[in-house]
Amino acid sequence: MKYYFLTLFPEIFQAYFQSGMIGRGVKAGIIEYEVINIRDFSGNKHHKVDDSPYGGGAGMVMAAKPIADALKSIPDYSQYPVIYLSPGGRTFAQKDGIALAQQPGLIFICGHYEGIDQRVIDRYVTMEISVGDYVLTGGELPALTLADAIARHLPGFLGNCDSLAEESFEADLLEYPQFTKPREFEGMEVPEILLSGHHEAIRKWRIEQAEEKTRKNRPDLYEKYEKNLQKK
Amino acid sequence: MKYYFLTLFPEIFQAYFQSGMIGRGVKAGIIEYEVINIRDFSGNKHHKVDDSPYGGGAGMVMAAKPIADALKSIPDYSQYPVIYLSPGGRTFAQKDGIALAQQPGLIFICGHYEGIDQRVIDRYVTMEISVGDYVLTGGELPALTLADAIARHLPGFLGNCDSLAEESFEADLLEYPQFTKPREFEGMEVPEILLSGHHEAIRKWRIEQAEEKTRKNRPDLYEKYEKNLQKK
Repeated sequence: MKYYFLTLFPEIFQAYFQSGMIGRGVKAGIIEYEVINIRDFSGNKHHKVDDSPYGGGAGMVMAAKPIADALKSIPDYSQYPVIYLSPGGRTFAQKDGIALAQQPGLIFICGHYEGIDQRVIDRYVTMEISVGDYVLTGGELPALTLADAIARHLPGFLGNCDSLAEESFEADLLEYPQFTKPREFEGMEVPEILLSGHHEAIRKWRIEQAEEKTRKNRPDLYEKYEKNLQKK
Repeated sequence: MKYYFLTLFPEIFQAYFQSGMIGRGVKAGIIEYEVINIRDFSGNKHHKVDDSPYGGGAGMVMAAKPIADALKSIPDYSQYPVIYLSPGGRTFAQKDGIALAQQPGLIFICGHYEGIDQRVIDRYVTMEISVGDYVLTGGELPALTLADAIARHLPGFLGNCDSLAEESFEADLLEYPQFTKPREFEGMEVPEILLSGHHEAIRKWRIEQAEEKTRKNRPDLYEKYEKNLQKK
């Protein structure tokens, strides 16, 4: 998988791709990435890439041409989905990560200010995606978020395949609580049942705990889960 | 606002707080931050901070004590909300960013692997928050996402207050399309109305465009918007 990031702040990306599991994925050759500075395509000596919006209003809008030129600097750019990160997009979810992991490469456009000229979106963007219902200073964290979520579904990225199967969302339930050594921490004991060795009882307890947590933290998800249970 | 990050990957944070608007917020003294390496509190010479889950299952769980000790290394830690980033938490939204911006400081715990020992959550965590319905390799990007979304609501952070008022979500509508110079880009013209100078007509057009976009990209949000319209 090759990720391309079009951004005004290239320095943000380096550290992320050098550390943690993503860093390991890069070293293992599973992930490649390239960061392209939109400002290098400003076409003017002040490196200006934004201007005031037509029709008035606060803030600045990123101009179309520097973004389009940065995009065209990628060889074979038309082969890859172009994703514009924006609070105005469709909401990203786990299943989108699985689907996008099938692509050979992805191009992320990171906006700033009041967004980018609509004409770039109309002509070049395959999908406008939002990571959630909140506004950020730019598209860099959302682009990294997608890159990270998608990377987990690349073959060979996760050492243990089970980790993928049991996790949140894929069965409309949040994860059950986890405990590790020592048995006692600040007066709190690990639940007895987890020490019992009764696999079936542990499995049932974990499902109950996951249901309880989902009901409390995510009533919307729990409703979906209950509906699906009734269908079975 | 002072942000504290408890993490296994401290190197991720530096670059983000040095660039863009967040970097400007740090230079202006609006944001302070401190990154604490949980591994420094492992208490063993191999710097091990995780172990296998009680009751069996794939993956590793971060142990309670190193996290609790890292937390207690923060002077007056009990004065600040402790936020654990996890796909199992309540979903973060714009209004939470506004509320959390009122705090003098926030402590973020970034988990990895199969999560952290539940007893740390029970004893020390004020709120468990999810940034969206997808799973990531760790809590670092979600912590930065919250830090960024919250920073935008700190007094003096955004130069122009209007930028906050008009943005996505606060009125249950996505943002209208934006256009900037030049008038023609690759054969596409700026919509005539934006050049008309008729402020009222422009305002109406923008609302229609925002409604259209919301209906298409976020039917869930549009439903909410329509219900609120009927109430008025």
